[in-house]
Amino acid sequence: MTPPYQDLSRFTMPENFRGRPGWYVQLWWVVEALLFRPSPQFLYGWRRWLLRAFGATVGPGVVIRPTVRTQFPWKVSIGEHAWIGDDVVLYSLGEIHIGPHAVVSQKTYLCTGSHDPEDPSFPIFSLPIYVGAQCWLATDVYVAPGVTIGAGTLVGARSSVFKDLPAGKVCMGSPARVVKDRVTGSVPAEKNEHP
Amino acid sequence: MTPPYQDLSRFTMPENFRGRPGWYVQLWWVVEALLFRPSPQFLYGWRRWLLRAFGATVGPGVVIRPTVRTQFPWKVSIGEHAWIGDDVVLYSLGEIHIGPHAVVSQKTYLCTGSHDPEDPSFPIFSLPIYVGAQCWLATDVYVAPGVTIGAGTLVGARSSVFKDLPAGKVCMGSPARVVKDRVTGSVPAEKNEHP
Amino acid sequence: MTPPYQDLSRFTMPENFRGRPGWYVQLWWVVEALLFRPSPQFLYGWRRWLLRAFGATVGPGVVIRPTVRTQFPWKVSIGEHAWIGDDVVLYSLGEIHIGPHAVVSQKTYLCTGSHDPEDPSFPIFSLPIYVGAQCWLATDVYVAPGVTIGAGTLVGARSSVFKDLPAGKVCMGSPARVVKDRVTGSVPAEKNEHP
Repeated sequence: MTPPYQDLSRFTMPENFRGRPGWYVQLWWVVEALLFRPSPQFLYGWRRWLLRAFGATVGPGVVIRPTVRTQFPWKVSIGEHAWIGDDVVLYSLGEIHIGPHAVVSQKTYLCTGSHDPEDPSFPIFSLPIYVGAQCWLATDVYVAPGVTIGAGTLVGARSSVFKDLPAGKVCMGSPARVVKDRVTGSVPAEKNEHP
Repeated sequence: MTPPYQDLSRFTMPENFRGRPGWYVQLWWVVEALLFRPSPQFLYGWRRWLLRAFGATVGPGVVIRPTVRTQFPWKVSIGEHAWIGDDVVLYSLGEIHIGPHAVVSQKTYLCTGSHDPEDPSFPIFSLPIYVGAQCWLATDVYVAPGVTIGAGTLVGARSSVFKDLPAGKVCMGSPARVVKDRVTGSVPAEKNEHP
Repeated sequence: MTPPYQDLSRFTMPENFRGRPGWYVQLWWVVEALLFRPSPQFLYGWRRWLLRAFGATVGPGVVIRPTVRTQFPWKVSIGEHAWIGDDVVLYSLGEIHIGPHAVVSQKTYLCTGSHDPEDPSFPIFSLPIYVGAQCWLATDVYVAPGVTIGAGTLVGARSSVFKDLPAGKVCMGSPARVVKDRVTGSVPAEKNEHP
């Protein structure tokens, strides 16, 4: 079969796609495997330090579990007091920005990389992901490349987010859609009257 | 941004939420990492013994794979001859009860923990999960906190169960819904006439 | 409760279901844990060699990540220049055939095994999976036992494929359905006019 769709022998990595030399990338993966992943859960400060040592911006009080995997820490920023849960993957071929006090729950996958399916050489590209301050992405949420999730929005468990979501909403499903406003005990009463 | 939705600096763990002292929880995780997870697949008796040593109720003949992860074994009960497949997570912040002869297939996630999204201090809570006798949760099923699945019910691969499911049904989807009665070769013929 | 649905004490593995003696299967899992999984990402040739040593057919130029898990390599064939991404599971109780230049992206699960839910002895069986040449299964796709995906077809992230999909399409959802023709820069213009 002559390839009309994908001829992966023609694939090439764009220059400096990873943003660091190859040996540095490999070094991070060794460090992640040997020093980050086996660390006891309560050593949150140690893991923040490791990520910062490899170029991540990590605010004070960030809670990140040992089972989190970070593709390229130098493309990640995490605001103060945010939580990153068990088995979360920060697939940061492109930039990932997680706002302060946001919660990214277990098994959630933030995917910044994709390929152009119309070009048989299957060129790789990345688009940044922005998770707003005080968002909550619940268990096993998928976020696609280029997506921005507005501040305070809650995305329900097992949802898949393919397009931007506005701020202050509860969203669910695959693809994730707005279900209702997010209610909070600290906002004025009139705001809480939305269904 | 003043936090209207989540101020995680105010989060506190409720007293005795885990049901065991902190050192005991850490000890379990070390034991799981060093003795449970690397054990060869055929050592089912060894893994049953480890779980029981940390307070789980595990019936005879239970088949549990080395890649299973158990948050707090002392909150788990598994009936005789049940199977727990590869990469299953028993996220037992609350109690998880799995009935005899039930099958929990690979990658299934039983999630007993959640947070109140309306309270900015983001309080954690747990609700128990009950998987009935002779249920089959197929590959990569998600079960939400507080859910009871009736005996004998089959939940199809990749389904997400957010609400209780009745006994003796085949259920599918996200959210999982009843599709039909579960037919079985050993029940009277008239029961098999349901679509 | 007398078991009408599942009596797992009556379960037996069919003779030679795995296609190799028990010690050989265990040996593969030890090799996978100690030699395949910890290998640095760039050692693609080493991992191809290991899979071939255990009976897999692996074409030249195949890119397979260290986090891939292969149940029984002797039931797997992967065509030239295909890619198998991070955390992919090739659950090859039955045969898995992946065509040349196909891409199986991260977290995708190819499941060839199932059970007869109408027989209380819960007999296991397997059905082969065929992923056509130049297909792209994107992140976290599930493929059910017995499914054939036609050449060049793109299955979107987080989709679940329960039935065969035709060639040259873009498919999405759970269950995955055809959304449109797959367009490619190298096909004649008239083919690109489909929506």
